[in-house]
Amino acid sequence: MSDFATWMRAQGARTEAALDSALPSTDTIPHTLHEAMRYAVLGGGKRVRPLLVHAAGEVAGATPEACDAAACAVEMIHAYSLVHDDMPCMDDDDLRRGRPTVHKAYDEATALLVGDALQTQAFILLARTPALAPEARLKLVDELAVASGSVGMAGGQAIDLQNVGLAMSRDALEAMHRMKTGALLRASVRMGALCGNIDPAGLAALDRYAAAVGLAFQVVDDILDVTADTATLGKTAGKDAANDKPTYVSLMGLDAARELAAQLRTDAHEALAGFGTRAGRLAELADLIVLRSN
Amino acid sequence: MSDFATWMRAQGARTEAALDSALPSTDTIPHTLHEAMRYAVLGGGKRVRPLLVHAAGEVAGATPEACDAAACAVEMIHAYSLVHDDMPCMDDDDLRRGRPTVHKAYDEATALLVGDALQTQAFILLARTPALAPEARLKLVDELAVASGSVGMAGGQAIDLQNVGLAMSRDALEAMHRMKTGALLRASVRMGALCGNIDPAGLAALDRYAAAVGLAFQVVDDILDVTADTATLGKTAGKDAANDKPTYVSLMGLDAARELAAQLRTDAHEALAGFGTRAGRLAELADLIVLRSN
Repeated sequence: MSDFATWMRAQGARTEAALDSALPSTDTIPHTLHEAMRYAVLGGGKRVRPLLVHAAGEVAGATPEACDAAACAVEMIHAYSLVHDDMPCMDDDDLRRGRPTVHKAYDEATALLVGDALQTQAFILLARTPALAPEARLKLVDELAVASGSVGMAGGQAIDLQNVGLAMSRDALEAMHRMKTGALLRASVRMGALCGNIDPAGLAALDRYAAAVGLAFQVVDDILDVTADTATLGKTAGKDAANDKPTYVSLMGLDAARELAAQLRTDAHEALAGFGTRAGRLAELADLIVLRSN
Repeated sequence: MSDFATWMRAQGARTEAALDSALPSTDTIPHTLHEAMRYAVLGGGKRVRPLLVHAAGEVAGATPEACDAAACAVEMIHAYSLVHDDMPCMDDDDLRRGRPTVHKAYDEATALLVGDALQTQAFILLARTPALAPEARLKLVDELAVASGSVGMAGGQAIDLQNVGLAMSRDALEAMHRMKTGALLRASVRMGALCGNIDPAGLAALDRYAAAVGLAFQVVDDILDVTADTATLGKTAGKDAANDKPTYVSLMGLDAARELAAQLRTDAHEALAGFGTRAGRLAELADLIVLRSN
């Protein structure tokens, strides 16, 4: 196993354990809500955002312990958004991470509350991180909230829904994705760095890396929606075309989308040049995001 | 107009202006989401929670300026919970504050995102309150998040939904309401106090006040659901009985519920005894909550 694969596996186990202890136990009332929250978060997912947090933390000299809360908080926000996005009034999907979606495994009201409470849990966690000073915790709250709110992830989702069946320019598509998925990926990188010490120039370089990786993530998602099957993806393949959603593939064609993903990978690597070996994990994650098969 | 009525009116205008500037403008993309967020929050509501924040702030010597962000954040959380509670998969209600609910005025997907983004906006606001030190802001984030999450408001809502059509003991009903509505009312009082200076004994006394007022609020809600009409309430009357929900009235009868509300009002006043005139507004708010007609 390569050094990177070993690191990935260790970080995955670390994040799973941290999420397990950051989520209320099923012994805590209300039992069903807590069981459903754990179902939504644990035992699946690629954990790309926690990996970005830890890798960016390495650049800024943060210990893994200092990064755990930020990694879990970002993943909880991501999980909440998936639970709500899968609901019938949004994307209406039955399958997520190879299992029934929360509103299928439980019911719609529970899915609504699971998403609501997972969002809250992310902020509880950040507010209570003993490994970080109050000022740093507050910065993390601010980063995560702005990235996930109405001018970030939730806003991007609103624009996405408004544009179903409509033609979108590449600029408009990019602006939408910068909010819908890019903002939270960028926040993952920035929050990891803010768990350690970083100067403004370093943070600006990480922003350039995150912008490239965030966009690459979406371009590859669009490619996989066309080229991969449902079993490999763990979610319904061909969904974008079925829902008549504008994508990089529908806009540019498959070959041009693949070229764009390759270019963004190069951009991501170039943004890291000034950090030297400290940014090794971030570089490897850029490769993973572009070269992944699900 | 009494001194209290003048104060109420001034605070109401103050909160409306503060909410207006704390919510993203409709000029900000995505326009429809921001318009719907503003629709959900502005131009209605009794603003009980902001009033409690400011009144508790007076006890702790906090200026109104220091309390504005906390008052707005609590109200945004309350508004988000109403938007989600009104959705078809929850209480399925068409009317709120005398107007169509958000999913009726817009659509379900928008209502879902409005609630999500209002929750986030509350934390953005607290993280960015220039009037307070970082440590105080972080305490406010923690108070609000714990009160509104899975062991607070959202958890109480989950228990409420599980018990539709079931018999509930008075203890179980009280435990549910302590989470569903009590936690956020208690947080309003505590957050107001934390915007100023308060010692642990003072905070404990405010907790006793808040527990009595929080429970009284729900008992009176249950009474009004039976005795008031839809036009007076601004929301659908008789909803609890129609939905077969356990209430204080269904459990104790109307007369005993009224006696309980009166007793809780006395308890609230007694908890404030040590504060003298500084707690005058909190005492008047306890009266308002018990004696209100909508």
